[in-house]
Amino acid sequence: MSHHISSLEAHRLQYKPKMPKTLASGRIKIEKGSFVEPKANAAEIKQLFPATYGYPLVRLVEGESDLSTAPLCVGVVLSGGPAAGGHNAIAGLFDALKAANPQSRLIGFLGGPKGIFTNKWIELTAEKIDSYRNTGGFDMIGSGRDKIETKEQLEGCEKTAKELGLNALVVIGGDDSNTNAAVLAEYCATKKFPLQVIGLPKTIDGDMRNEFIDMSFGFDTAVRTYAYLVGNICRDARSGRKYYHFIKLMGRSASHVTLEVALQTQPNVAIISEEVKARKHTLDDVVTAIAQVVVQRAEEGKNYGVILIPEGLLEFLADFKVFLKDLGALLGQEEKQIEALPKEERVKFVAAKLSGASGELYKKLPASLQEVLLQRDSHGNLTVSQLETEKFLADLVEARLNEWKEQGRYKGKFSAITHFFGYEGRCGFPTNFDADYTYCLGYAAAQLIRGGLSGYTVSAKNLAHPVEKWEFGGVPVTSMLTMEHRKGELKPVIAKALVELDKAPFQYFAANRERWAVEDCYLSPGPIQYFGPSEVCDARNKTMLLEAGLE
Amino acid sequence: MSHHISSLEAHRLQYKPKMPKTLASGRIKIEKGSFVEPKANAAEIKQLFPATYGYPLVRLVEGESDLSTAPLCVGVVLSGGPAAGGHNAIAGLFDALKAANPQSRLIGFLGGPKGIFTNKWIELTAEKIDSYRNTGGFDMIGSGRDKIETKEQLEGCEKTAKELGLNALVVIGGDDSNTNAAVLAEYCATKKFPLQVIGLPKTIDGDMRNEFIDMSFGFDTAVRTYAYLVGNICRDARSGRKYYHFIKLMGRSASHVTLEVALQTQPNVAIISEEVKARKHTLDDVVTAIAQVVVQRAEEGKNYGVILIPEGLLEFLADFKVFLKDLGALLGQEEKQIEALPKEERVKFVAAKLSGASGELYKKLPASLQEVLLQRDSHGNLTVSQLETEKFLADLVEARLNEWKEQGRYKGKFSAITHFFGYEGRCGFPTNFDADYTYCLGYAAAQLIRGGLSGYTVSAKNLAHPVEKWEFGGVPVTSMLTMEHRKGELKPVIAKALVELDKAPFQYFAANRERWAVEDCYLSPGPIQYFGPSEVCDARNKTMLLEAGLE
Repeated sequence: MSHHISSLEAHRLQYKPKMPKTLASGRIKIEKGSFVEPKANAAEIKQLFPATYGYPLVRLVEGESDLSTAPLCVGVVLSGGPAAGGHNAIAGLFDALKAANPQSRLIGFLGGPKGIFTNKWIELTAEKIDSYRNTGGFDMIGSGRDKIETKEQLEGCEKTAKELGLNALVVIGGDDSNTNAAVLAEYCATKKFPLQVIGLPKTIDGDMRNEFIDMSFGFDTAVRTYAYLVGNICRDARSGRKYYHFIKLMGRSASHVTLEVALQTQPNVAIISEEVKARKHTLDDVVTAIAQVVVQRAEEGKNYGVILIPEGLLEFLADFKVFLKDLGALLGQEEKQIEALPKEERVKFVAAKLSGASGELYKKLPASLQEVLLQRDSHGNLTVSQLETEKFLADLVEARLNEWKEQGRYKGKFSAITHFFGYEGRCGFPTNFDADYTYCLGYAAAQLIRGGLSGYTVSAKNLAHPVEKWEFGGVPVTSMLTMEHRKGELKPVIAKALVELDKAPFQYFAANRERWAVEDCYLSPGPIQYFGPSEVCDARNKTMLLEAGLE
Repeated sequence: MSHHISSLEAHRLQYKPKMPKTLASGRIKIEKGSFVEPKANAAEIKQLFPATYGYPLVRLVEGESDLSTAPLCVGVVLSGGPAAGGHNAIAGLFDALKAANPQSRLIGFLGGPKGIFTNKWIELTAEKIDSYRNTGGFDMIGSGRDKIETKEQLEGCEKTAKELGLNALVVIGGDDSNTNAAVLAEYCATKKFPLQVIGLPKTIDGDMRNEFIDMSFGFDTAVRTYAYLVGNICRDARSGRKYYHFIKLMGRSASHVTLEVALQTQPNVAIISEEVKARKHTLDDVVTAIAQVVVQRAEEGKNYGVILIPEGLLEFLADFKVFLKDLGALLGQEEKQIEALPKEERVKFVAAKLSGASGELYKKLPASLQEVLLQRDSHGNLTVSQLETEKFLADLVEARLNEWKEQGRYKGKFSAITHFFGYEGRCGFPTNFDADYTYCLGYAAAQLIRGGLSGYTVSAKNLAHPVEKWEFGGVPVTSMLTMEHRKGELKPVIAKALVELDKAPFQYFAANRERWAVEDCYLSPGPIQYFGPSEVCDARNKTMLLEAGLE
């Protein structure tokens, strides 16, 4: 029994990603379109990006190619949390560079952006690439959460690029990383340093998308992984008929993951943060809504069910939101003072400093929540994934049901089991969709580089359709920027795409959820398939199909 | 978008389970073998089962059939926790009965054994069966944890059988349920009531197996589900390089699940309860062993890893075991008194009553653990799955590392994330192996019934080999029985199969684990595949292959 790789991995290494003819033909040219102004704060963005603001959209089309065939030295870096397909994006980039000129080289920076400014890298050879094709994870070169934005970091990038003779850098990351790509592109353009910077849209949350990019990569694999597990648990709930499963799913800022998993599995309840926000729901409203479904089901003799909760829910609750804002401001102002305190005294300090309703709310929280709320990640965000929102809600629902039981309004049995699915979905083998899509993204990035472009994110349209209809190009990062407060500072960011309540995916959910709440309409999507009927192994996710009007 | 079933489910409904020619040919006869004495307590078992003790082993072989072709009315019941393949066992039973005589009927008892003695059932028609072929879950007829053992329950079964004109009952369940099948068979034989009782070996834990039964059904699907998730998490750990994942896996009495998942994914640490027991390890020993691996890895610059923990671990720890025995005895003696107390006073009561080392241990436990330990399930077992052993261990390892850090013995960073995989793996679509195997089990059960047998569990051999070589038959339940204490009473039970430390699966693990601890030898088995290359979608699990000497 010699085990270097699994049987499935051996087969996946041989999978040939599908590409539209535009890319596969090799006869690729860049067609320039119009300039698109940022949706908001255009003046501020123009001021921050004087050298790179105003670039046009571009499309990759079939035709007599005038793209460079000179040997290129290109760097690639993975940034932030892993998403399935990262390795294929690198493979596509590699294959496209080699196809244009076998002398071209690809450099992989190690451990994320830090690998650039600390000059840690490996050359990505054919042998290396071949051993990672169609695999999950970011382990080929690692990843990291460092940013590229300070003067020191930018100069570090320049120094490394100079030493290596880099022509271009491809940054594979989410909204922050693509913004960083724009910052670096601007820095280079201003200094007339000849480094092109291209970004790729990665995030399992599905929130790095817009009119130019149908879907960020990794979303499809993540949602299918979670939907598989949720579908199994739905079937388990209906088999045993004795548990309510409270399942938290990754997705801090947006609820695309929860919505898609709900569309694929049809659970009894799925909370969508964006709706909670739009309707100004409080924590109490959400608890009441879930408890009411439990009561309705109990009346039908069903003391079991499945409830989906997006990871970021608490931040979208009307009362919690104000509280989090107050807390965020306090933590910003008193950051150093709080850090200087021993852990156990921080909670007391914050409780004393927070005034009004937010102070009251903080004092009423369980101690574990009080502590976790004081932690922030390197982007200045609350580490909300540490909050056990699913247990918190299950406990509150149970308490509500006990009250109602005493009042004679509820006669059922309630026993909750909680789950959190997140890490499981980030590093699996990419679905055929994600494998194809990321390979194309990398392949397209190489073409933008060959075309001399910088400060662009690779754009991708028609993804809900068969691969042949996919369209790739580039969107200037600056066209996607807006200004937002981060740690009290106004900064250029790519606005996260949220679930839109008037669009088809949410509308379909809203039209069906009352039935799903009481009847058992559970679906079992099953595990991701890589072989077999195309309608199974090449299927598009529901969000994309509904958005494209294909379902 | 009309969603009754998923695309994969639509395809799985059409899957034709593979059967060995012996069964598929229809020319089936029963070959009687020798009587096998129980491994222990033969005299007691003979005394408890005077009418059914002494039956011979039987084999289903190809040949001129003398099995009954009279129309039969057969009942089937699902018992205990769900396991993938339950629906196929019923489908195999249905098809075999109809093949022998289209007038035969199959009755499905609802909600587990209780459905028999409360006379709740549905007739399983072709239409019903066809809509559940190759699906996961026990939702076709539900399941339950009631036993069939009291006089009232036995008489209830007799009454229902009489009313329905049942010729036979097939009990699909684990060790307890198969024991119950023997009790009912004995009851009927003694009363000369013409109801035959046949059991099928179900349990995802893989502990209902012996020299007659290679593997219980549902194990293969469960371990592949968990191995998929663990493999993804290994890849995530290596990509992000900052977390230790403590993953608890289902398996209370035996560690087959944890061992198999370790063989499929090659994590840094996997604790095997049977080894812990054999070596008389204490909680402190286990914590030290894990912490040592963390230190070793930190010295190589690796502050991440994956640690597998079997659900039942705490019960196998030398110090905890004595404690649990003392606690179990106390709970047995004082059951009614404790139940009469309000919840919050029970802990105090038990703490005061437990003396010596066990009392000390109980008092030192976290409050949450103290409470959970007072809960028992209907089989009188501790509800150990409620204990968050994975968090408990992660906390203890962190504390140990902090001590070592102060002593200068450890310089790494430690950040733990915990998971529990259990419910996810019970109700997925059965693997091709489990789909084929369970269909054959049901098909074989029908032949034992046609042969007039009762008090048998369907036996299955050569399962590691291709389906053509599979051999089915029957083993008298009494031949598998032994006597064990349950709730202070000596009772006949089927001994659970534990991981044997001198057998190939554990030996392979033990020979490799030191390397796996430090080097990153992680494997990504990927999700269960139902199509594609046979080596992927029809693969046998490592436990079976190693036991059969095929790896």
